Amino acid sequence: MKIFYNSHDEEYKSPFGAVVTGEQVDIRLRVEKGTDISCGVVVMIRAVDVEFEMEEEKQDGDYIVYRAEFSAPNHPCLIHYYFSIREGEDTYYIGNCSEKLGGECCLYYENPVPYQITVASRNIRVPKWYKEGIMYQVYVDRFNKAGDENFYAGRKGFVRYENWNEKNRYMKDDSGDILFWDVYGGNLRGVIEKIPYLREFGVSILYFNPIFESNSNHKYDTGDYEKLDSGYGSDEDFEELVKECDKNGISIILDGVFSHVGMDSKYFNRLGKYENRGAYNSRDSEYFHWFRFKNYPDEYECWWGNKSLPNVEEMNPSYIDYILRGKNSIVKQWMRKGVKGWRLDVADELPDEFIQILKTETLKENADSIVLGEVWEDASNKKSYSKLREYFYGDELDSVMNYPFRKAFTGFLTGYLDGAKALKIIMSIFENYPREYFYSCMNLVGTHDTERILTYLGDSPEERSLDEDTRYGYVLSDEQRGYGVKRLKLLSLIQATFPGVPCIYYGDEAGMEGYSDPYCRGTYPWGNENEEILSWYRKIFKYREGSEVLKRGTWEPYACTGDMFSFTRTLGSKTIVVAVNRSSTDMIFKLPGSGYEDILTGEELDRKTKLKGFGFIFAICSNR
Amino acid sequence: MKIFYNSHDEEYKSPFGAVVTGEQVDIRLRVEKGTDISCGVVVMIRAVDVEFEMEEEKQDGDYIVYRAEFSAPNHPCLIHYYFSIREGEDTYYIGNCSEKLGGECCLYYENPVPYQITVASRNIRVPKWYKEGIMYQVYVDRFNKAGDENFYAGRKGFVRYENWNEKNRYMKDDSGDILFWDVYGGNLRGVIEKIPYLREFGVSILYFNPIFESNSNHKYDTGDYEKLDSGYGSDEDFEELVKECDKNGISIILDGVFSHVGMDSKYFNRLGKYENRGAYNSRDSEYFHWFRFKNYPDEYECWWGNKSLPNVEEMNPSYIDYILRGKNSIVKQWMRKGVKGWRLDVADELPDEFIQILKTETLKENADSIVLGEVWEDASNKKSYSKLREYFYGDELDSVMNYPFRKAFTGFLTGYLDGAKALKIIMSIFENYPREYFYSCMNLVGTHDTERILTYLGDSPEERSLDEDTRYGYVLSDEQRGYGVKRLKLLSLIQATFPGVPCIYYGDEAGMEGYSDPYCRGTYPWGNENEEILSWYRKIFKYREGSEVLKRGTWEPYACTGDMFSFTRTLGSKTIVVAVNRSSTDMIFKLPGSGYEDILTGEELDRKTKLKGFGFIFAICSNR
Repeated sequence: MKIFYNSHDEEYKSPFGAVVTGEQVDIRLRVEKGTDISCGVVVMIRAVDVEFEMEEEKQDGDYIVYRAEFSAPNHPCLIHYYFSIREGEDTYYIGNCSEKLGGECCLYYENPVPYQITVASRNIRVPKWYKEGIMYQVYVDRFNKAGDENFYAGRKGFVRYENWNEKNRYMKDDSGDILFWDVYGGNLRGVIEKIPYLREFGVSILYFNPIFESNSNHKYDTGDYEKLDSGYGSDEDFEELVKECDKNGISIILDGVFSHVGMDSKYFNRLGKYENRGAYNSRDSEYFHWFRFKNYPDEYECWWGNKSLPNVEEMNPSYIDYILRGKNSIVKQWMRKGVKGWRLDVADELPDEFIQILKTETLKENADSIVLGEVWEDASNKKSYSKLREYFYGDELDSVMNYPFRKAFTGFLTGYLDGAKALKIIMSIFENYPREYFYSCMNLVGTHDTERILTYLGDSPEERSLDEDTRYGYVLSDEQRGYGVKRLKLLSLIQATFPGVPCIYYGDEAGMEGYSDPYCRGTYPWGNENEEILSWYRKIFKYREGSEVLKRGTWEPYACTGDMFSFTRTLGSKTIVVAVNRSSTDMIFKLPGSGYEDILTGEELDRKTKLKGFGFIFAICSNR
Repeated sequence: MKIFYNSHDEEYKSPFGAVVTGEQVDIRLRVEKGTDISCGVVVMIRAVDVEFEMEEEKQDGDYIVYRAEFSAPNHPCLIHYYFSIREGEDTYYIGNCSEKLGGECCLYYENPVPYQITVASRNIRVPKWYKEGIMYQVYVDRFNKAGDENFYAGRKGFVRYENWNEKNRYMKDDSGDILFWDVYGGNLRGVIEKIPYLREFGVSILYFNPIFESNSNHKYDTGDYEKLDSGYGSDEDFEELVKECDKNGISIILDGVFSHVGMDSKYFNRLGKYENRGAYNSRDSEYFHWFRFKNYPDEYECWWGNKSLPNVEEMNPSYIDYILRGKNSIVKQWMRKGVKGWRLDVADELPDEFIQILKTETLKENADSIVLGEVWEDASNKKSYSKLREYFYGDELDSVMNYPFRKAFTGFLTGYLDGAKALKIIMSIFENYPREYFYSCMNLVGTHDTERILTYLGDSPEERSLDEDTRYGYVLSDEQRGYGVKRLKLLSLIQATFPGVPCIYYGDEAGMEGYSDPYCRGTYPWGNENEEILSWYRKIFKYREGSEVLKRGTWEPYACTGDMFSFTRTLGSKTIVVAVNRSSTDMIFKLPGSGYEDILTGEELDRKTKLKGFGFIFAICSNR
């Protein structure tokens, strides 16, 4: 007996993907004739499982179609379901396959893995400036330095490379602790100087790695949330940056690091550098209750065992007031200075309630603001510390960093996943994320936390197989770089045409290389860019900026199998098709219809078109 | 039977110490009466031993005095001697004790250790500006930074500390190779700015660690002898420095590093940074024959196995021309720019002939110039590569770095040597060095190659017992520093009153601490000096500057035993006595005569004066 179910197919589950609160869900099973069975769909809502009997809806050739319907709960949540099949005295189950990506079903004799349905709030709406934007991620110290002034002058613990093009490296002592923080002197003025450059890629959102005062180069160990780090410039520079961004239609997102502070901070003050009393200095400190001491003052809870990053008790009322709720809270202060959104560092380590308050308070300050979460997995069913997170219920995050996007397409392009498998990863996101969120994901191919995309795509040895010195010195060979560039062009084409917000990690567009932290944090190679990549990025991202189809069109997968990945974007009468061939062999690609023309050359394309090895099709049809 | 001989006593050997060519030497033995012996003095001149029969000169109580005389050779050299004693059929020997410091004799039944006599040229004369000067050693990068300009900007391989007061440390990769050279940005303008400061100590000679172009911070790996390193400033800055020094009566000595160059140099050019063809690049390079390749181009002779420092073939004619003999040779070029002397790095690795040519050529350029050698041991009998060196024959070095001085007095003050033993080390130098050279030694208590004197004197743990991180972080406790300061005041008093040229290693006068390279190369702590040491140094060195007795007077040891070291300096009718008590216990010191007054207080002193624990006597008698 054959049974078919595919959650990605509306013939089986309607509507596709996430539903809104109270929405009706239709579920169908297709069962081969000839056996006497009864079946039901078991819907799991919190701790309660409810079975809905499925009824024969119709006969279809050799198959009987069974159907059930049920309503989603009236509150945002995740629900799950599987099928129970009874044949005589036997019961077996139809469920999600064990990798939990949805789509085609698997058979279980016990403990079926259920499918997920995300039940989202009805009123999810992500601001247009964000959803339709193009983002650029800037690590200020490494992006560009304007002027000769040395803003770090006199600061302890820092060394500055005398040459902008020096390869960076952690400077550690024999125990592996950082001895000196290495900086280059990139600054806000440097960013301002490069706004025209960013506009060449249609950039409309600047996401900054942390810029608040801190005693490291990465600045994830905040020293004082109220101050711009003096190494990056002055308050006037920040004002100027906001003004120039405004003029150029660029919105600013800051990195909000709220799960921990630096031990060398105004709040903790372990090193005594700050004049006020920090939690470390006295139990009478106004900050004492922000921290969790096991044994005062030297044993305290900290971020992944890193003593330089004491964790804060986020739900402490005084912390909540200081960061979020107060009239002049940190998030409000900075929003008043022109910040439009927040990227929440380690969102999964922040309590849902903290993020909810943050969302409420930032919306109060600016109804058009957004909150973007650092989440590495499928954010719809992310668990942290055994607790299911509620990012997507409608009152926390507007967007997440789409690492699954990176995983699917880098895996596809380097041969680890075929087209079908890559699609399955994408489909699971498409299915599980509320539609508005799927169309607002921050689609990245690399960040300050990953190796440089060109190094990854260039068939470099796996990072963990190399010792530190080799990683430091590693440069792709010309041959490797050749492959890397070919793949990067395909990957960036996908990124630039995918629904969501593409984010360019500074310098990826210039061909920067390097393994992960710190080697992915080099300086932008001004004057020494890879021109092939650069001009390609200019072309495709600038096109995206002007394309309503790419900004707002629906997404649909097209042919995804073997070495091929393709999809369409449709808006009104226009359809854009994107297809990439990851192999070195030419193939024939059949366009979804006639009347397509090549977007980059303007050439009309035959329905059956040659798709060269490492080639792509990027075509539009305007009269579907 | 008792036999007495003491080479330090003119009753036995006359004249004391080194002699000039052809000079007559009288030698006497004092032998207890009652045995029938005959004796001779065996004089060893090169490979030839000549025995001079000793004759009974006189009877003196229970003793017979035997005497012989011989003439020193007519060329500068070292000769040695011992005594052969025959009693019946037995022969035994009287010689130098095994530590070879001269003075009282030892008895040998075979293989006697001989005494040394240095036979020096008749016309040794060291220029007055040098001999009577006060020297200050400057490591430019660490001494003082003037202006905000960053002269290192853009240079690869360098990182700069953002804070002048940062503790320095090598930045190495996992194999221990230097990753980046750490610099602070001290520059020549910074030195110019501090000339008034230097004059507070009577400084009249500035000795600079290398200043020629090089791609390290220490600059011992020369990149281009013709250029000032741009990190230190411009040619105009150097001109200005010379001008300002001239105005202030300060002479300049440069570090001449001629035994090797940097692999990253115009001459070797291993990294290809220089535009010309270096020896590494081509066998046709004009510099090819300067180097000794074992296997071209990657195996070459280098300094102590350090591939970044290829050794040069110093006697290669083109090298000799370039560095020494040419009309516009390196030494001449720089002397024309105002350099008055050269300190020869690793003099013991330079051929005698090279140094002789250097001496000749520099004298041609300026008859008042000097050459100072880096020698760590007794320079009169230094052997390198099994060959006896000829530094003191009159045509090589005018002065040497007096490391034995450092050894004797640091050993004395920290309790490793008692006063008598310290004296013995000093006496051996006094005996072996031609008089003019002894009175021209560069007396140092620390350099860029030793740990900071305060750390050494402060009872810090022995450096080799500590791991790198501990050495890096090591700071004396207040108690240790207390002892260190007390001893440093005594040591610097000896240094300031000793014959020769006292040299202050920058920052020792400010209480700088640190183990050896790189921790002895920190930045001068402007604004954070140890005021006690600083004002002490000002007092005693300024006094020295004005004292003809200290600059030109003869030196004689006085009471040196146990915890006491004392000596006198005499010129005409004036005598200065210096005595230090290294213990914490008060003692009574008997002045060499009456009529002494305390130099610092002007107080008249009793003949028997209290010498406090850790105290000193520094007194002058003007009517001897």
